[in-house]
Amino acid sequence: MAETTIRDRSIHREAVGDYRWEGVDCLPYKDDDRALFKTVTRQVLFSDPELSGELRYFEVAPGGFSTLERHHHMHAVLILRGRGHCLVGSEVRRVELHDLVTVPPLTWHQFRATLGEPLGFLCMVNAGRDKPQLPSAEDLAKLRADREIATFLDNRVAAS
Amino acid sequence: MAETTIRDRSIHREAVGDYRWEGVDCLPYKDDDRALFKTVTRQVLFSDPELSGELRYFEVAPGGFSTLERHHHMHAVLILRGRGHCLVGSEVRRVELHDLVTVPPLTWHQFRATLGEPLGFLCMVNAGRDKPQLPSAEDLAKLRADREIATFLDNRVAAS
Repeated sequence: MAETTIRDRSIHREAVGDYRWEGVDCLPYKDDDRALFKTVTRQVLFSDPELSGELRYFEVAPGGFSTLERHHHMHAVLILRGRGHCLVGSEVRRVELHDLVTVPPLTWHQFRATLGEPLGFLCMVNAGRDKPQLPSAEDLAKLRADREIATFLDNRVAAS
Repeated sequence: MAETTIRDRSIHREAVGDYRWEGVDCLPYKDDDRALFKTVTRQVLFSDPELSGELRYFEVAPGGFSTLERHHHMHAVLILRGRGHCLVGSEVRRVELHDLVTVPPLTWHQFRATLGEPLGFLCMVNAGRDKPQLPSAEDLAKLRADREIATFLDNRVAAS
């Protein structure tokens, strides 16, 4: 634990190419979801007992997607690499380099690398936060009632 | 106040070129320091009552520099544009695109656009934080006792 803290307090951690950082582990997105293992990675860039927020970098491989979920805590996202689409609430948006995306509390959201290139983004969250909720069959049916959202969830956005 | 909150909750704010964002004001770094007015700008990318952190973007024009200061709260920095140098504690570091810089509590720090190009960086801080302290003459003398730091503070790093 002490070692982790010391490493996190390193004053300077260099970007070492291909959106990796010195001393930062590149992790599978979620250990409990093997379906996403190969398409989404997670790197925790800043996490410290003195910081009330955390900054993470997620990267979705071309064709991949993050979990469709919602939670009480907010996400504050900045696109750092490539472009793609995201669903936030009832809106599907095309996102480009450096665009900002706000995910308000209890809002369904998903990021998809729809445009044949990786989609990498920074995500700021509260250090103390609740666990994500997954959609029920009823939630999914409600979302899919919107044709644009159904197209997005079927991974057919780029072609539409 | 309500208007500010609504604007901050916009789901998607596009990057509109030259490191500016839709609906984000580009502000002078500090209204009370005219010497820096023309060389440093500040944009608050994420600030919301539900977020315990804030994400800001600062840009230092070529040859410019941020205030030399310290405070209890930490800075978590990611270089988003260009390159330059920074002083953190007793270390002067050259920083490049996407490098990470951690400023621990009560640590003197300054960013300088030493390399003929703008130096732009994201900075995550706690939403609740203390005011910066400026160095006394004695503090400055202690810092300048290190030749590398003196060179940095005299804006002569690039030539050294």
